[in-house]
Amino acid sequence: MKAIVYGGPGMKSWTDVPDPVIRNPSDAIVKVDTTTICGTDLHILKGDVPAVTVGRILGHEGVGTITEVGSSVNSLKPGDRVIISCIKSCGHCANCKSGLYSHCMGDEGAAGIGWVFGHLIDGTQAEYVRVPYAENSLHLLPAGVSDEQAVMLSDILPTGFEIGVQYGRVKPGDTVAVVGAGPVGLAAIATAGLYGAATIIAIDLDTNRLEKSREFGATDVVLSGAADWKERVLGLTDGKGVDVAIEAVGIPATFSMCTEIVRPGGNVANVGVHGKSVELHLEDLWIQNINISMGLVNANTTPMLLKLVAQKKLPAEKFATHHFRFDQFMDAYDTFARAAETNALKVVITA
Amino acid sequence: MKAIVYGGPGMKSWTDVPDPVIRNPSDAIVKVDTTTICGTDLHILKGDVPAVTVGRILGHEGVGTITEVGSSVNSLKPGDRVIISCIKSCGHCANCKSGLYSHCMGDEGAAGIGWVFGHLIDGTQAEYVRVPYAENSLHLLPAGVSDEQAVMLSDILPTGFEIGVQYGRVKPGDTVAVVGAGPVGLAAIATAGLYGAATIIAIDLDTNRLEKSREFGATDVVLSGAADWKERVLGLTDGKGVDVAIEAVGIPATFSMCTEIVRPGGNVANVGVHGKSVELHLEDLWIQNINISMGLVNANTTPMLLKLVAQKKLPAEKFATHHFRFDQFMDAYDTFARAAETNALKVVITA
Repeated sequence: MKAIVYGGPGMKSWTDVPDPVIRNPSDAIVKVDTTTICGTDLHILKGDVPAVTVGRILGHEGVGTITEVGSSVNSLKPGDRVIISCIKSCGHCANCKSGLYSHCMGDEGAAGIGWVFGHLIDGTQAEYVRVPYAENSLHLLPAGVSDEQAVMLSDILPTGFEIGVQYGRVKPGDTVAVVGAGPVGLAAIATAGLYGAATIIAIDLDTNRLEKSREFGATDVVLSGAADWKERVLGLTDGKGVDVAIEAVGIPATFSMCTEIVRPGGNVANVGVHGKSVELHLEDLWIQNINISMGLVNANTTPMLLKLVAQKKLPAEKFATHHFRFDQFMDAYDTFARAAETNALKVVITA
Repeated sequence: MKAIVYGGPGMKSWTDVPDPVIRNPSDAIVKVDTTTICGTDLHILKGDVPAVTVGRILGHEGVGTITEVGSSVNSLKPGDRVIISCIKSCGHCANCKSGLYSHCMGDEGAAGIGWVFGHLIDGTQAEYVRVPYAENSLHLLPAGVSDEQAVMLSDILPTGFEIGVQYGRVKPGDTVAVVGAGPVGLAAIATAGLYGAATIIAIDLDTNRLEKSREFGATDVVLSGAADWKERVLGLTDGKGVDVAIEAVGIPATFSMCTEIVRPGGNVANVGVHGKSVELHLEDLWIQNINISMGLVNANTTPMLLKLVAQKKLPAEKFATHHFRFDQFMDAYDTFARAAETNALKVVITA
């Protein structure tokens, strides 16, 4: 088969590799029909994630059709259309039993981390992929949900919802600010209303993304390059600060922005993947009764979010801005890597 | 009357000042029978809290007897024995209505901050004190609770419980580590069992405090000066990390200790008052699904904790290690400031 293979920092190729095979009774093999590229893949290609070794097939998002299942798999069969969750979960360990799939201790890839595809085991940017713990890591796709919608449920929609909205404890009537209106920030914007957020402020450097954010549910937009960005955000809250500030970029500056605009008693939900430490101003914040959450998605809300997509309550299809075929995979990467020029949100690549 | 008056950094005196008078209809005047000294008072004396101006009467903890009430005070009367809460609350503002008394927006002292005694208005290290919003800021003392027990309810017991145990989301079966076994850390240790903590690990540099912590409910103690302190803590959790790490010192090193020993999915509850920023290692922590809380006590659990003290379920009297009369106030400060030598926890000063 063909796959996107990591060749070390800055290097990747769409090249021939052996087909995956069943290794454990709980595995399934999935023919990938649709996949996409995540900002994390670009981080890996920069060499920022040293656990990814040369020869690894990249990708942790995908929708496909089961071609083979292991001997212990009962609820799935060849021919089933499935969403591949970016998080594997054994379902048996103490963390899985408490819903903390992000830290599944099943020994695929590495014990204690749920994100293994395109990281510690081969991923989804390929014609076929082996999926461990198939009955937990795959979700049957109902008729009426397109591949293009479903692939947004592999990672971005549950990440924005769980790590932004749920960890941020959004509640009815809240004012929620989302710093960074990329795919995951937009996913938080799109799902903040599920817990009754009344005012949803998108904050970004890019006017195109801010305009796009309105389609996902932002009620107000603030250009973060503007000198008065903070005054504008506080002005939307009678000067008090937002109830929840969601960080969806992953750099120190945007994290600090969140701590500057949150009200006393409010929540900062960090969703961004960070490569550096940040300076936390505890000398000012200790007295502010704020809460700072962070984490990798558990993907335990994927079935619920899938139901909302099927009911046409979540516009998952709106994330897709560019389309490619597998033999154009390198072009897809190029378009996504130049998102500031191409206005790409999610690039969708199909077999 | 006489009071401890702040004279600028490094300076204080037990000196004559005018008696306080009723200023607002919701005020009460309380004759202070028993008071104590807080680590925060030492910070103020170092000049670390510039909002405290020369001439301010210090202190935010006390138990006393009402001598006069304002015209709108109905539920309290002269002669009543009361605990003075370290937090004033108007009871009417949006923050008070949500239980966030720490950020009461009533305009005594400064709008938006609940801690005003010995900070923005005159405090409790005096023969008499004016208490604003008396019906919310005072708690009637039942017979059978001593002054020495009750004065621990002004600040340390609710602070350890609310900001350590409640904000740290302690739940049944949890392993809780408390870094810093001073009065507030011991208050967290003493109250962690209220939510079912099974293992309570006290961590401190001082062996005397570690021994003391067992009297308050610590099941294990770890000397933080030891090279293997971290291994010892992790060894008590099968290597997984603690469910809740409570920071009760207020320096960057102890904050970092908490982030190093918390398990994925766990909570760090910062209780310490910090004077410097800390380096938050988001590059490692973003993926750990941890939660970091912080804040000033709301003192909204004081009535509940008072009931537990009355029922002899909370050994409040054990915090008191040294006793002084008002005319020995300067000696009390000296003993408390040299706690490392004197083994002082709380010094109790009575009229």
